[in-house]
Formats: sequence, structure tokens, C-alpha cells
Amino acid sequence: MYSADYLRNFTCQFFSKLGCPDGDASTIADILVAAEKRGISSHGMIRIKNYYLMHEKGRINIRPEIKKERETPSTAVVDGDGAYGMVAGKRSMEIAIEKARSAGTGWVTTNNTNHFGIAGYYAMMALEEDMIGIAMTNANPLVAPTFSKSRLLGTNPIAVAVPAGKYPPYVADFATTPIARGKLTIKGTLGESVEKGLVQDAEGRPSSNPDIIKEGGAILPLGSDLEHGSHKGYCLNSIVDIFSAVFSGANFGPFVPPQVPFLAPRDKQVGRGLGHFFGAMRIDAFQEKDEFKDRMDQWIETFRQAESIEGQPEVMIPGDPERAMEKKTEQEGIELLDSVIKDLKELAEKLDIDFETRGG
Amino acid sequence: MYSADYLRNFTCQFFSKLGCPDGDASTIADILVAAEKRGISSHGMIRIKNYYLMHEKGRINIRPEIKKERETPSTAVVDGDGAYGMVAGKRSMEIAIEKARSAGTGWVTTNNTNHFGIAGYYAMMALEEDMIGIAMTNANPLVAPTFSKSRLLGTNPIAVAVPAGKYPPYVADFATTPIARGKLTIKGTLGESVEKGLVQDAEGRPSSNPDIIKEGGAILPLGSDLEHGSHKGYCLNSIVDIFSAVFSGANFGPFVPPQVPFLAPRDKQVGRGLGHFFGAMRIDAFQEKDEFKDRMDQWIETFRQAESIEGQPEVMIPGDPERAMEKKTEQEGIELLDSVIKDLKELAEKLDIDFETRGG
Repeated sequence: MYSADYLRNFTCQFFSKLGCPDGDASTIADILVAAEKRGISSHGMIRIKNYYLMHEKGRINIRPEIKKERETPSTAVVDGDGAYGMVAGKRSMEIAIEKARSAGTGWVTTNNTNHFGIAGYYAMMALEEDMIGIAMTNANPLVAPTFSKSRLLGTNPIAVAVPAGKYPPYVADFATTPIARGKLTIKGTLGESVEKGLVQDAEGRPSSNPDIIKEGGAILPLGSDLEHGSHKGYCLNSIVDIFSAVFSGANFGPFVPPQVPFLAPRDKQVGRGLGHFFGAMRIDAFQEKDEFKDRMDQWIETFRQAESIEGQPEVMIPGDPERAMEKKTEQEGIELLDSVIKDLKELAEKLDIDFETRGG
Repeated sequence: MYSADYLRNFTCQFFSKLGCPDGDASTIADILVAAEKRGISSHGMIRIKNYYLMHEKGRINIRPEIKKERETPSTAVVDGDGAYGMVAGKRSMEIAIEKARSAGTGWVTTNNTNHFGIAGYYAMMALEEDMIGIAMTNANPLVAPTFSKSRLLGTNPIAVAVPAGKYPPYVADFATTPIARGKLTIKGTLGESVEKGLVQDAEGRPSSNPDIIKEGGAILPLGSDLEHGSHKGYCLNSIVDIFSAVFSGANFGPFVPPQVPFLAPRDKQVGRGLGHFFGAMRIDAFQEKDEFKDRMDQWIETFRQAESIEGQPEVMIPGDPERAMEKKTEQEGIELLDSVIKDLKELAEKLDIDFETRGG
């Protein structure tokens, strides 16, 4: 088991040694460790190896000049300058928050950026400012629109964080697909099959093979099939793509550059890098701050008091499961897969820093 | 068959006779007929009877003073003053557009309002201004969150319209549930059962009875069950509720006032009326106008060219099915159900105006 502090210090040291400015290394460490703490290990320490190799292949700019390309009182287009997505993402969300201070809301679309980790991190940045936060990003094309054989979209997540008063905030953070890529990989590793309605094969037929993505298959949009509203999931997923990449001038849909070193960049580009979209809205743009928080508390109470179905868990407020994991990891520490520990140890040696091997 | 013009003139005359200002009557007519043209008859002429009876019961203010209660450069909270939702909705979207002209984007949340028809209408208002339009609303509680027996949310639709260049615009307009209430009603009337994953019974057990809503059952969130991501549909659906009603000071979730005359208003209120949320973003906040439209055209071309699954229709762009219906109804006219024709004839007599009975 590792403490969050240990992993944060290691990650910070790692990216500093790689050549990132200290502030940027610290940002990357914060966001990767936030994922581990919240139980989203698919977006945590496991990513460091790919991030390292992407830099080694010259596909990341570790000394970026992130700048506004265009702006209005409530918007900005940000050039991420090929940075790690976390670095471009955090700066972009800061700009959205700055805009919201003067204009009531701030909206930033970012091009020329990369994989940014958990969307929820950026949305939650708004909370401490008494603002509602929104973050989304496009991603490697693995998702087939309704009726399509081809993979044209990513799992394109959306995060929305809303401050409350006496209760913890509302934090929704979800891929716009029935299942995330990471969970499919785990099922595949365990040799398990998956339910119908999550993936299709290369010809577009229903499949229960979690590894079908490796054979040209695709993840379905939220809704699974037409009868259950997959066209609505396709709408939602494509809205994320358009806001993140058409707005910003990044690559959209099937042109999103692969975020893994073993897949070469695409020949055809329709923009620069991948794209994100961020929003911040001052709660006092809508209500007096206390009144807003009281109303949100009342909303949370109402939903928490809902009667649950016999044999099923209690009705949750978005953000509850991640908060429960934060409590657990704080008490028990963070467990890493043996393969991740091995990789980190090897990478640490390359950069001449330490990484301790610790058991569960 | 009826022409759109005939129905628009009738509806306009009807609401004028009822006592609405001419401009408001014309707004209601435009939006109801837009629904008929787009093939969404559940939100069209069939609603007039309920709208009439809601007014007769004193639950609609037909001479509203709609006004901004609070504002920042990019936001406003609008008091709908108990108006028909179309009247409050159109005015609110106009304010969002005005805000966007000066601030780049405009965001309006509206309280004290009612059923507003198709969300897509308001989102599409932005298109002629070279803006992206967004509209959402909360609605009568019929939807159970994941794990819940209780109906706490509406079918809460989201609409997003994005201008393109040589192609028609991208227009997504969808309920955040696998099936809309209107479609369930039709299935029930036809005595058909529905697939699993759309509704549950009063105890929260899966059901295939489309009439189960009348027996205390609920519609499921988009995603249907936990394995297929219903918790993500619940997030999405609840975001619409929070943006529309917590932000504005309207009734949220289970407190949304019934929009039908045969259900009495609730005893407990946590705000005023139901709530909407609108957004407008200038496309030139993000790119030069022509460049934005070119990029959107390229996006549309890419998705239109996707290879479809054998035996399935071509991959669609959101908005395609409604546009196809618009073409059809323009050529062939609009068909109304016999029961709707009968109701309209009776209502017309009450107000001493004409409504012709026409066959299919």
C-alpha cells in the first residue's frame, strides 16, 4: 500500500526529472493521484509509463507556452501547445474561472492538447470558488455511432460539479458510453465475458467479448441499442466531440491522435492535438450564495431519502462512490497492480530516482 | 390532412381568443406547429386541450410580465410569471442570445414557468444568429434514479443546435431516458408490450408493461440498468433538473407541478413553477464564422460517410430524422389523430372559432 503523499511526491519528482517545470510536474502528480484516491485507477499511476513514452517519442511538449488564441468576455480558445493534457487542462480551467469572476460564466475550449486524466478534477476546481464546474474531452475513437460499423468517437466523458452547503458537493463524472475502456480491459484480463449491449464486433454485430476492441470491434454509445436510446447516447457523445474539437480547432472524431505510444499518429489531421471544453458558472450569478447552497442541500436530501428497491443499495448522489473511495484510500492507502509497480520501478531507475516496491 | 399554415392560424386565433396577447398566441402556435412538422406530435396540437384546461383552472397566467430577476454580463435568472412555457421559454432564449452578443455567451435559467413543448425549437433560435443554442427543461416526475423505487425526475430533455455551412445544422434534441412518455402511451393504446430496460413497476422490478406508469411504475434513466450505465443517465437527467430548477428557484425533481389539469398541484412546493435552462454561444467566439462552419461541415461529412452495419439504415447526423419529417409534412400535410380533431373542434366551438374536420 502507498500513501497518496508518497505517490504524489514520486510523480512530481518523476516529471520534474523528465524536464517539466516544477509547477507542471506538480499538476500532473495531483491529477494522477486524485484519480487513485477516487478509485479510478485506470486514470492514475498506470498512465505514467505511456506519458513517459509519449514524451520520448517527441509527441509531448514538456515546456509548453499555453496561451489564449481568441477571447470574448466569457470565452477563450486556448492553444495547449502540445502539452500534457493535465497541464493544458488545468490552465484552461483557471481561465474559465477567471472569466466567470467578471462575466458570470467562463467557457474555454482547448486545442493542441493530450489525455487529461479524470474530467472530474477540473470540474471540481470550480467548487472552491463557489462556482459550478464543467469539463469534457474527446478521446481515442473506440465508439461506433448508432447504425455504424466504424469507430468514430471516444468514450468522451462529461463532468459537472455543483457546490452544496452542509453536504459534500454534487460531482457527476461519466463516460458517455455504457462501459469505460478500462473496465473492458479488466474483464478481458480476467477472461470474463460481458453482457450484451456494451460492445459490437467489427461487422457491427452484438458481442460479449470484452477484447473485441482489439479485433476491430467498438464500444456502443450510452443506451446500447436503438430500442434503448443509443441514438441519444450518440447525440451526447458527439456533443462532447464538437464542443471539445470543432469549437477549438483540435482533431475531432476519428482523427483524434492516439494517446498511446504504440499507435502512430494518424496521417490525416483535421486540427491540432485533441480537444477539451471547460465551463465555470458563479453560483451567485443565479442565487445569493447561501440560498443556492441551501437549495442544493435540499435537492441532495430529497434524493438521499428516496426509497430504494429491495435488495439494492441506497440511492446515491453523484460523487458518493468516489468520496467513499477517498475515505477508504486515506485510511488504508492506495494499492497498485504489481505490473504498475514493476513499470514505475523501471522508469524510476531510468531517471535515477527511487520507487519503493510495497505489497498490498 | 392539414397544412402547417392552417394549424398555425387556428392555434394563433385560439390563444388570442383565450386572451393571450397576439405575440404570445403566435409564439405558442409556432412552437406547437414546429413539433407537428418535425414529427413530434406528442408535443404538438394534442397539447392544446391541456393548455386550455390548465388556463381554465387558473394555473396559467396568460398576461404574464416576464422579467429578469438577476443578471451578470453573461447570465440572467428569468421569472416566467406563471406563463405558458413557450412564452417564457422564447423570451428567455432571446435574453440568452442578447447576452451572447455582448459577452460571447449567454445563459438563462427560468423559474415560474410551465411545459414548453419541444426543446429543439429554442436551441434552433440561436442558429439564425450564427450561435450554438442549448435548451433543457425539467418535467413531471416519472423517472426513477438508479436503485430507486420512487419517481424523482422527469424525462428532462436536452437540445443542442450547432450551425454548419453548406449542410443543414446539427440539431440534437433528446429525452434523457431510453423512451419518451408519449411513445409509451402509444404502445399502451395499441396493447403492445415493451422491451425490458425501459420501465419498472412500483416495486422497482423490470416490467414490459407500457402502462405501468399508471400503476406507480417508473421510466428508467438512459442506460436502463446499472450494467448498461443507468447511473450515467441518472447523472445526465439530474444535471438538467439542477440547471433548470436549483439554479432558477423553480421546483426541482419530485416537486415539479403537474402539467396536466387532471392532476392537482402538489401541496409541497420548493420553488415557483417548473424550470428551464438556455444557452447561446457565438460561433465567432471560437473561430472565424466561415472557418467554424467549414469545420462543422467537415464533421458532418465524416459522420455521414461512416460505413453502416449490414441491414441497418445509414449513419445519421442529429436532426436528420426531424428534417426528413419536415419535408414529408410540407409535401403531404400534417395528419392529426381523430381524437385530437374532435377535441379541437369542441374547443373551437367554445371560443366561437372554426376548426375544419379533415380526413387523412
